[in-house]
Amino acid sequence: MSTINLEETEILNLQFDKRGGLLPVAVQETQTGQLLMLASVNQEAFEVTLKTKKATFWSTSKNEIWTKGLTSGNTLLIDEILVDCDQDAIVYKVTLEKGGVCHTYNTQGKNRKACFYRKLDLEKNQLYFLEK
Amino acid sequence: MSTINLEETEILNLQFDKRGGLLPVAVQETQTGQLLMLASVNQEAFEVTLKTKKATFWSTSKNEIWTKGLTSGNTLLIDEILVDCDQDAIVYKVTLEKGGVCHTYNTQGKNRKACFYRKLDLEKNQLYFLEK
Repeated sequence: MSTINLEETEILNLQFDKRGGLLPVAVQETQTGQLLMLASVNQEAFEVTLKTKKATFWSTSKNEIWTKGLTSGNTLLIDEILVDCDQDAIVYKVTLEKGGVCHTYNTQGKNRKACFYRKLDLEKNQLYFLEK
Repeated sequence: MSTINLEETEILNLQFDKRGGLLPVAVQETQTGQLLMLASVNQEAFEVTLKTKKATFWSTSKNEIWTKGLTSGNTLLIDEILVDCDQDAIVYKVTLEKGGVCHTYNTQGKNRKACFYRKLDLEKNQLYFLEK
């Protein structure tokens, strides 16, 4: 399929093969616009997401399909899915069922809401914790 | 470096090697929270971004460093950089110098603001254009 046919079509044609089977997905909280995490999906994970309406990924560390929150309850309910121009990047817009998507814990012992809990100090070139 | 030392540190230690030299970066408009594009950075692109304060990527199609907007004027000025828990994903929060980051054009003949200009209809499993 030509580039223009990917960009200006209403036909979903995700380019998994172009990227070795895995596409990046940005997970964004619908209500606030906050970026929660970046992950990968393969075709199967994407299809499970469509079927269950729960954000599902391919775990590159465990090499398996991973529906976020199946054990922890931190499920991410799909509100919208956006697809980019050349159909090789995805956004899941979600609502959190519980408080946090990150496996790490804040100083109150709770899962951090987002994996992006540190900001780079552009002058000092070091990270600082947004929760502080 | 152990996992915990990546997650709970203020030391920037991006894990380029873990991902074959390239990390995903989500580009988000600071003012609105809108997701504009997803791209990749290698170490050099990240360092150019820090130095110039202009969003710079590794073009996986051209295999070269790519400072967005150098020719078009659609420069993305860096406001903030966020880093994820295991330091293998990045968010650039940016201000657009001109109107649009996407190389495609809307019906008015202008560069689309974001590459994510289509939403998936979850019932019909087809895309539709948000600009419509």
